[in-house]
Amino acid sequence: MLRTSNPFPIVVSGPSGAGKTTLVDRLLIADPLIRRSISTTTRAPRPGEQEGHDYFFVDRREFERLKVSDMIEWAEVHGEYYGTRRAFVVSQLTSGRDVLLNIDIQGADKVKRVFPGAVMVFILPPSFADLERRLRGRGDVSAEDLQVRLANARAEINASIRYDYVVVNDDIERAGGELRAVVAAERCRRARKTQEFIDRVTR
Amino acid sequence: MLRTSNPFPIVVSGPSGAGKTTLVDRLLIADPLIRRSISTTTRAPRPGEQEGHDYFFVDRREFERLKVSDMIEWAEVHGEYYGTRRAFVVSQLTSGRDVLLNIDIQGADKVKRVFPGAVMVFILPPSFADLERRLRGRGDVSAEDLQVRLANARAEINASIRYDYVVVNDDIERAGGELRAVVAAERCRRARKTQEFIDRVTR
Repeated sequence: MLRTSNPFPIVVSGPSGAGKTTLVDRLLIADPLIRRSISTTTRAPRPGEQEGHDYFFVDRREFERLKVSDMIEWAEVHGEYYGTRRAFVVSQLTSGRDVLLNIDIQGADKVKRVFPGAVMVFILPPSFADLERRLRGRGDVSAEDLQVRLANARAEINASIRYDYVVVNDDIERAGGELRAVVAAERCRRARKTQEFIDRVTR
Repeated sequence: MLRTSNPFPIVVSGPSGAGKTTLVDRLLIADPLIRRSISTTTRAPRPGEQEGHDYFFVDRREFERLKVSDMIEWAEVHGEYYGTRRAFVVSQLTSGRDVLLNIDIQGADKVKRVFPGAVMVFILPPSFADLERRLRGRGDVSAEDLQVRLANARAEINASIRYDYVVVNDDIERAGGELRAVVAAERCRRARKTQEFIDRVTR
């Protein structure tokens, strides 16, 4: 079985409209050693959604229990809980997979605290004007909602100082290549190599 | 003119026989934004060698002066001096080029002290047996010389703990890709981005 010898969580954040989802989807297709983190939620499955593929579906009582015992990060959105289970991330890492978490800056901070070896990547739009144009282009965004999103985006970008890497999504091919390079380089980090690895080459 | 916005020195070290020179040559061909560091030496030019291309040729008195005022690192080999001028590295960085230094571990430590932002990459053979085979295969190495080189290699590999990255040269294509990925990823490092860069995307 293919496995990476020193798996780590990869945290990808960025403002809505920066093209994060497309970049993440491409990375997952390009690199079979990376698995997407699957969230746990209290909301009901939508038609076609599968347990353990799209989400882990649990009831409210179970989520309350997990919040205390196993959630790295969680949030309540429109009255439903969404969160990331430590047990899930650990099981993927143990099986030799890097785990990709597409997550906001608050969640990212929590992941870094639990997994100090996590790689933190922030996706940036080429300019703020470009971000505004992309958000307007979605059509379903009210003027008020747009202002909230732009304010959030500005705050998020300023918080990107806590990330290890920034990838500017001005060209999807180039940005995709940079994201793959970050993962490839991090796999070469001396600090991630075990003593067994060093012993192997000096004997 | 093409230039990288946040140039840095790239230090590549590794034991003799690990395939370092081939990897470095390939990186320089693949990436026109990286320049090879050109050493200064007291030895006479060999036929075909050009000033400022192969070496900077200086006399002994000039080298003694530079040792005090401008040499990041230097060594005496077979009675001749070889060294790296700080002024040369700085001029390349200032013109927007990353500077690649193929240098031993002692020299590497000195580069890191002068340029804390330098990226340190150590090239490893796939195994020690492989390294021995490659050194023997060179033919012109005496049994005694071989033992010295192997002892040096073991000491160098143990010192690789001070490097940021290790690239195992078991396959030249894969190792070359890893070296390119390290450079590409380091260009995305948040810590290398200027405030102007961040301002540009938040305005």
